[in-house]
Amino acid sequence: MNILVLNCGSSSLKYQLINMTDESILAKGIVERIGIEGSILTHKPTRKAKYEVEQTMPDHNVAVKLVLDALVDSDHGVLKNVNEINAVGHRVLHAGKYYSDSIIVNEDVKKVIRDCFDLGPLHNPANLIGIEACEAAMPGVPNIAVFDTAFHGTMPPKAYLYAIPREYYEKYDVRRYGFHGTSHSFVSKETIKFAGLDINNSKVIVAHLGNGASISAVVNGKCVDTSMGLTPLEGLIMGTRSGDLDPAIVEFVSKRENISVSEMIKILNKKSGVLGMSGGISSDFRDLKAAMDNKNELATETLQAYTYRVAKYIGSYVAAMNGIDAIAFTAGVGENAFYIRTMVCAYLGYLGVTLDEEANHAAVGEEAVITTADSKVKVCVIPTNEELAIARETLDLVK
Amino acid sequence: MNILVLNCGSSSLKYQLINMTDESILAKGIVERIGIEGSILTHKPTRKAKYEVEQTMPDHNVAVKLVLDALVDSDHGVLKNVNEINAVGHRVLHAGKYYSDSIIVNEDVKKVIRDCFDLGPLHNPANLIGIEACEAAMPGVPNIAVFDTAFHGTMPPKAYLYAIPREYYEKYDVRRYGFHGTSHSFVSKETIKFAGLDINNSKVIVAHLGNGASISAVVNGKCVDTSMGLTPLEGLIMGTRSGDLDPAIVEFVSKRENISVSEMIKILNKKSGVLGMSGGISSDFRDLKAAMDNKNELATETLQAYTYRVAKYIGSYVAAMNGIDAIAFTAGVGENAFYIRTMVCAYLGYLGVTLDEEANHAAVGEEAVITTADSKVKVCVIPTNEELAIARETLDLVK
Repeated sequence: MNILVLNCGSSSLKYQLINMTDESILAKGIVERIGIEGSILTHKPTRKAKYEVEQTMPDHNVAVKLVLDALVDSDHGVLKNVNEINAVGHRVLHAGKYYSDSIIVNEDVKKVIRDCFDLGPLHNPANLIGIEACEAAMPGVPNIAVFDTAFHGTMPPKAYLYAIPREYYEKYDVRRYGFHGTSHSFVSKETIKFAGLDINNSKVIVAHLGNGASISAVVNGKCVDTSMGLTPLEGLIMGTRSGDLDPAIVEFVSKRENISVSEMIKILNKKSGVLGMSGGISSDFRDLKAAMDNKNELATETLQAYTYRVAKYIGSYVAAMNGIDAIAFTAGVGENAFYIRTMVCAYLGYLGVTLDEEANHAAVGEEAVITTADSKVKVCVIPTNEELAIARETLDLVK
Repeated sequence: MNILVLNCGSSSLKYQLINMTDESILAKGIVERIGIEGSILTHKPTRKAKYEVEQTMPDHNVAVKLVLDALVDSDHGVLKNVNEINAVGHRVLHAGKYYSDSIIVNEDVKKVIRDCFDLGPLHNPANLIGIEACEAAMPGVPNIAVFDTAFHGTMPPKAYLYAIPREYYEKYDVRRYGFHGTSHSFVSKETIKFAGLDINNSKVIVAHLGNGASISAVVNGKCVDTSMGLTPLEGLIMGTRSGDLDPAIVEFVSKRENISVSEMIKILNKKSGVLGMSGGISSDFRDLKAAMDNKNELATETLQAYTYRVAKYIGSYVAAMNGIDAIAFTAGVGENAFYIRTMVCAYLGYLGVTLDEEANHAAVGEEAVITTADSKVKVCVIPTNEELAIARETLDLVK
């Protein structure tokens, strides 16, 4: 069973072809600048040389066809025929309030994806084009929509409702949705396995700390709360996103800067977070760490604020679940930055968390327990793998 | 030593005259509709009948004079002469980043109050007028500014900085300030005394739950974090304020409703919170409780979300302090609504909180411990008294 995993952005397309017998990657690649001058496909078959195709790609249909061509290319391909692809798993951003699971695409599902254009204006249209391109190029092959919001669909109203006039929820579906759901789902399941927990009696927190960052509380395998909201702006401090904020700041600053509310929200998404807070040092944590090591005060304050926010969210979710069995760090920063994990766990002694500093230093991008044997809560590093997660979800629905 | 406590709003003035020998209230009252048709002074001397004066009051100067007249009135007064007032304590909203303590008013202090008009546009101008009216009416009597933000002035940068471009902090002083400081200061001190803690080794959380609501974390008597931010909009769900929100909602809803960002922020302040969330049932918790008892689903969801938010903040502040000794509930809802306290404490078993339901039901507007003797954390009801707190701060500075 070979599954193609597709992740369509507004002008890009990432893919992986996975053999589900052993979950090995046969090939992966990326198409960039779709619909823009200079379109390029970079294809990397496993155990073969990288292969680049520069060619005009006016839309995702052309891009999907070129990807399929590359996969069956006599020199650079890994398949003899496109019909060796058994299913396609699509990352789709937003399912609104409609789905809390992955689903085989039919006309109803496409309508939901379309109905959620408003909630995911940059991603949902591209995701739908990707699906329709696959339908056209591989008739009869099932397409599965794996929604980034779906895992959070099990949140109760107390977690997803905002304290705003109820008509905004009724008219415009304004509520918390949460994102990075595929990662939170995958990592929480891995954590339960790795920490030896009983899924039906487990309380887990997943801290997905990448350039985007979110955190979720998972009880018995189901998400009960998450930090991103209507959009991916809310919650933790991120690379360039502010996360939580007094909403009055939107008006206060936009008036003084004489900019529109849209420009202000763009600044909160693109020029804030650790980048803005550090006075522009970087959105990359390696640069901030180097600056902190050089006693740069802005970098130090920024990383202190960043880890303080993570620790406070962990504390709040322990209260939300009235307890905690395991905490997982994942994604670029969570998997690799031991000092971030040290700074966060320094707040958690009251839970009986005792870090094993040696194990923590050693854990770089691989599954590891980073607490001592007698720590009351297991803290783990669990690498995320969204493509594999999408492939597994897809397999579950087509097998 | 008699201290007059003044709280000037934009068109109102509340006062209490307190004899600090025994902290007894000699008289209290309110002036309403200052500068508007129908101005009225309602004066209540202790152990004497209420007394009303309807008279044109074009400004706070006239109002202050009428209050002083009432205090020395031969029939309704409680003093022989205005010079029996030894000091005036003024509630002042915003000290910006300048003061983290109360202070005797001089020209520098007045400049700071003026410099913070931008941060407290409704309150600071009225507060300054009140001070200048007292200076004019009682020359030589010291005026003390007791700032609503001051107690929170000890927060570290990680708690007060937002993850936004640093220039907004540098140019416009955009940061977390926090409010209800007088209450958090008073109640945290009372809690430490009442729970028998050593102030130099204490971790306390104060949940001030009134129509406005905020929560603070207090280590060794000093505030280390609080939920209100640049403005009193951030944090907990309140009577009519949303509290925390995905900042992107400001743009999302204002576009769809075709209203300005200012109108949107007004809605988040005046028509949101439990009032908006419940679909307009009420901002009064007694009404919501009655509706919940009648199985009204919106009221139930609203109170669940309200208490969930409080519990999550408590959890996050326990992490912020890496531990907790005592939690205090105060203000209208916190002091009186036992069911709110029950719903919040239901999340806190993991901390070793065990509620004494009988004690909790019995605790209405009076100091009480509402946990069992073996509870690891003492949860208390501690009535707030902002006027007395202001009077005590004033006494400390003039004695």
